[in-house]
Amino acid sequence: MTDERTTLADLRRRVAEFIAARDWEQFHTPKNLSASIAIEAAELLERFQWLTDEQAAVALQDEEKLAAVAEEMADVFIYLLSLANTLDVDVSEAVLGKLERNEGRFPADEWRRRA
Amino acid sequence: MTDERTTLADLRRRVAEFIAARDWEQFHTPKNLSASIAIEAAELLERFQWLTDEQAAVALQDEEKLAAVAEEMADVFIYLLSLANTLDVDVSEAVLGKLERNEGRFPADEWRRRA
Amino acid sequence: MTDERTTLADLRRRVAEFIAARDWEQFHTPKNLSASIAIEAAELLERFQWLTDEQAAVALQDEEKLAAVAEEMADVFIYLLSLANTLDVDVSEAVLGKLERNEGRFPADEWRRRA
Amino acid sequence: MTDERTTLADLRRRVAEFIAARDWEQFHTPKNLSASIAIEAAELLERFQWLTDEQAAVALQDEEKLAAVAEEMADVFIYLLSLANTLDVDVSEAVLGKLERNEGRFPADEWRRRA
Repeated sequence: MTDERTTLADLRRRVAEFIAARDWEQFHTPKNLSASIAIEAAELLERFQWLTDEQAAVALQDEEKLAAVAEEMADVFIYLLSLANTLDVDVSEAVLGKLERNEGRFPADEWRRRA
Repeated sequence: MTDERTTLADLRRRVAEFIAARDWEQFHTPKNLSASIAIEAAELLERFQWLTDEQAAVALQDEEKLAAVAEEMADVFIYLLSLANTLDVDVSEAVLGKLERNEGRFPADEWRRRA
Repeated sequence: MTDERTTLADLRRRVAEFIAARDWEQFHTPKNLSASIAIEAAELLERFQWLTDEQAAVALQDEEKLAAVAEEMADVFIYLLSLANTLDVDVSEAVLGKLERNEGRFPADEWRRRA
Repeated sequence: MTDERTTLADLRRRVAEFIAARDWEQFHTPKNLSASIAIEAAELLERFQWLTDEQAAVALQDEEKLAAVAEEMADVFIYLLSLANTLDVDVSEAVLGKLERNEGRFPADEWRRRA
């Protein structure tokens, strides 16, 4: 599977099956999942803890290090998708809605000039 | 759009356009994005900071509070998708690969009995 | 040493010596230290990730688990003290000043009634 | 008060009084406090979210920005001290013990050569 043909619903179903097969829904409360997202996000950040942007760019040319970063990203995604399942939140609507509101808050012309 | 017909690539393209329109790629380094994911994850967690699981469940029946939580989730997703773009990581592969490895680490039969 | 006779300056000096002996000041930038504080805070939170408040209280009666939590707390403190050294911030003044401002924001009488 | 003459116990008592005056001990469970530490740590990190180390150094010459950073640091300290109170953990012992163990893990001679 690749991102071109995988829907958000595909990933959500796969996460839901994984959780249900272990009877873990009881632990996947919104508060625990939010804590878990923060915990995994910190593990992702840890990969870059002492690196400058330049050093990080070099490190990420190493296949193994990139794979490790991708795995930390996956952990954050999995808990986010589980939270979407728990709360019955449509991820695409939430993401596209937020980007639309941000279009208004950060007018492209103005910010391109500043950047 | 809804999760049933939105692919990961659809969302990634939309995020990439938003960033590019503002010339923000220069700020979206892996380290800054990882920090941003952690920051937004903490804002999500803040919604449940002082609540028990039971109080959180009640709070989330309020449409406005649920929408606020969905918006915090969107913020985390947006930075994660931007990081996937920056690193050219396939999100679906990373998520499904991680779930597969976790199938081995957490055998369903054994964990269902424990849970 | 114990908290009754150890000053903030005592701990700050000890942290500064540890860092200087390894020539690590170059890595201890405000941004890296803030990221490190967030990373260690997440490791502390991880100790309670799937526990209810009641389960956490039981777990913490175990000496070894309490010691592990204290060690995660120490990690957060050490980076905070290093940041105070880097920025030449007086911790006591910052803490007491913040508590004083919070006295005004959260009048004790009113909040005791609510709680 | 300044760090030279303020003990950890002084700050801990002041935090304990603030909490007790509002009947907030009930909310200050180890899990909630750990989440709060992570949340405040992320607010501290947010101050440096898009800055390079060089830009952060310039920003921190601004008195107001430095004061804002010190206030975020105070928030993390306050929750850490409240957790120390809740768990009856001696902060000085935890910090000095951890530094001593780290002396062994990171021999100064070796790391100075590497740095």
